[in-house]
Amino acid sequence: MNEKYEKMWEDLGLDISAHDGLLKVLGQFYGDIYLSQDKRLKGMEYLDFVLSEVHGLRIKELQDARAAGKKIIGTFCMFVPEELICAANSTAVGLCAGAEIGKEAAEKILPRNTCALIKSFVGFKLAKLCPYVESCDLVIGETTCDGKKKAYEIFQEYVPMHIMELPQMKGACDRDLYMTEVLKFKAKIEEVSGHDITADNLKEAIKLINNRRKALQRLNQLRKAIPTPISGRDVLLINQISFYDDPWRFTAKINELCDELEKRVQAGEGIVENDIPRLMMSGCPMAVPNWKLPYVVESSGAVIVGEESCIGTRNTRDLVDETGETMEKMINALVDRYMRIDCACFTPNPERLEHIVEMAKDLKVNGVIHYALQFCHPYTIEAYKVEKALEQENIPLLRIETDYSMEDIEQLKTRVEAFVEMVK
Amino acid sequence: MNEKYEKMWEDLGLDISAHDGLLKVLGQFYGDIYLSQDKRLKGMEYLDFVLSEVHGLRIKELQDARAAGKKIIGTFCMFVPEELICAANSTAVGLCAGAEIGKEAAEKILPRNTCALIKSFVGFKLAKLCPYVESCDLVIGETTCDGKKKAYEIFQEYVPMHIMELPQMKGACDRDLYMTEVLKFKAKIEEVSGHDITADNLKEAIKLINNRRKALQRLNQLRKAIPTPISGRDVLLINQISFYDDPWRFTAKINELCDELEKRVQAGEGIVENDIPRLMMSGCPMAVPNWKLPYVVESSGAVIVGEESCIGTRNTRDLVDETGETMEKMINALVDRYMRIDCACFTPNPERLEHIVEMAKDLKVNGVIHYALQFCHPYTIEAYKVEKALEQENIPLLRIETDYSMEDIEQLKTRVEAFVEMVK
Repeated sequence: MNEKYEKMWEDLGLDISAHDGLLKVLGQFYGDIYLSQDKRLKGMEYLDFVLSEVHGLRIKELQDARAAGKKIIGTFCMFVPEELICAANSTAVGLCAGAEIGKEAAEKILPRNTCALIKSFVGFKLAKLCPYVESCDLVIGETTCDGKKKAYEIFQEYVPMHIMELPQMKGACDRDLYMTEVLKFKAKIEEVSGHDITADNLKEAIKLINNRRKALQRLNQLRKAIPTPISGRDVLLINQISFYDDPWRFTAKINELCDELEKRVQAGEGIVENDIPRLMMSGCPMAVPNWKLPYVVESSGAVIVGEESCIGTRNTRDLVDETGETMEKMINALVDRYMRIDCACFTPNPERLEHIVEMAKDLKVNGVIHYALQFCHPYTIEAYKVEKALEQENIPLLRIETDYSMEDIEQLKTRVEAFVEMVK
Repeated sequence: MNEKYEKMWEDLGLDISAHDGLLKVLGQFYGDIYLSQDKRLKGMEYLDFVLSEVHGLRIKELQDARAAGKKIIGTFCMFVPEELICAANSTAVGLCAGAEIGKEAAEKILPRNTCALIKSFVGFKLAKLCPYVESCDLVIGETTCDGKKKAYEIFQEYVPMHIMELPQMKGACDRDLYMTEVLKFKAKIEEVSGHDITADNLKEAIKLINNRRKALQRLNQLRKAIPTPISGRDVLLINQISFYDDPWRFTAKINELCDELEKRVQAGEGIVENDIPRLMMSGCPMAVPNWKLPYVVESSGAVIVGEESCIGTRNTRDLVDETGETMEKMINALVDRYMRIDCACFTPNPERLEHIVEMAKDLKVNGVIHYALQFCHPYTIEAYKVEKALEQENIPLLRIETDYSMEDIEQLKTRVEAFVEMVK
């Protein structure tokens, strides 16, 4: 696709030759990890297409939308209420943060001991390799963790940002604080987009985003079948793409894929044999193209049947109540929904432990792999409580701490294979 | 002192033989770093005595206070309003967090990539070596950083805790949140102490803690003289002991020491020659007995004349307004004072940059050493902005990231010596 989009990438200020190199590596990587899979669903062709055009056609669409007056709002976190962005006739996109790119440049302004995700989004910007961030009229940060909170202060020197403060507990004053932040965010989006958010357009936006969540909930219901009809890698990819793709089209395509899955489940067809160990991933988000660990797991004789993560069920579990007709009721419904998120940034965070145990039982998994990015204090420390909670249910846990480099892949394989052998 | 207090330590459940070993090492370390100094003030004898009895006489006093019905409240952070503790006829003490103790035990429940301060307080508890935490009726945690916030969830399994939530910004809703937390804290202290906090006892407590701050402000004014009349190590020790010692006695003793300092300054006497480079430390707190870096700096031909740190000017810069007569006014004055703290946990945090530049100029320093604990995201990331702010004023900065081990001491010496040579 390179020739077709070169002018656009140049206009966006990308480093063309480095970007060509990135796409080449990404293509090979995708081929090895995704296209090599057996018994893949026909519906995955759409996802393959989207991924192959993730820096091409989708960026073209964003540029066309901008030319037509829409604003593009970049986000890093599921705490940002996308409904308000859509209601203001704007488009929300997740930003590149899943590859070890621009690491050296990032480490000039951030400590080496910063998690790979943060170094990645800073690195993508400094190395001029993320067409999404270059397409943004505004980027939204949030105070979920110390690393992001403080890194945004520096990142703001490079991109226009708005920072949402998040509370750290879930009491009444925390809800008040988050409500204030949602209202500030609404005002900011209205200002940047030049569009008023009304009860009518917000109602539509709530439905739109709920429908995407419902499609992903349906997918998660179907994959529970034994044998599972879809690989964990594919579901991760679907979740990843949900942050980039047009929500109307994406929802329709995922529902089509679910129709196909339904038939497969009815026919008792799986992508693996019945006796292959079923594992669940739990922990930090895996941003595109961070497929390292799922690939290791699914090449070690196991299959992934659940992702307890922001790029997974944490993002799709809760719907926004759709019954409100007034702005006040709808904003309250948004605040209620987002305050239910069980991110490790909260203290205490018992809901996450309950969700993990519940999911592990519901999915009938043989074990859980807790995945944390190195230097991510919230998830690496909370892993201790996750382990205790699963221990009480006799569900084995493997704790993995890693980053985006490929240096530890053999070591990961050894550990995962031993775990799979143990839980068989 | 070991024989005299052995029974008390046993009653507190300390590991007696390990504790004997700790005191021996601490004594040697203190001798090397403190007692070896030339031209020491006579007033430092009190501090030497307090330090030599830090696990002895002071603990005995706490036990006697408990026997007389007082409650002991442990804290880790200067965001906890000590005034409310004193008003409720209770005693606030800082908890042991400055030595590499119980590290192996701590790393069984916390990730290795946790800062040394957090591993230290967990390690002291697990290794049964901190008589302070064993004397506490309640320990107060706060959500300043991800590491502490999440570690307290586990630490609570070992000690009775109350967690205060802190906001991450300084807007109106943040002040509301902190106000709510101060009121919850007040109610908790009243419950645990069995004493009502009244306008009268709070007024007294505000004066008491302000007077301690004023004594330390006076000390900081006097040490500014050229040549400086007191070593940075000694001032650090004084700041450290301010968290442990009885506030009435401590304030009186520091004022006596200041009288002596005044004479020295009038006589133009210093502890170093006029041409010795003057440096300022900035960054993370240095808890007792974390004297590593100050010792390295002051053995490298420089003298420290300021500590921009929680165990330093961040804790003593601001007084609580004393004019309020009603509970409401006093609580508001407390909230105002504590919300002025320029901790790196806030975003953005421009006040700290202003304070650093202001201090560096006021103290006429040749350079600043930014000290951060490894894995402390707030301070390690904010160091970038500190460097930029000082660069604009042509004030050199040396960034140090370290922990409590002695392994890097030669490397630190080499870097500090080169820096001292450069700023001369």
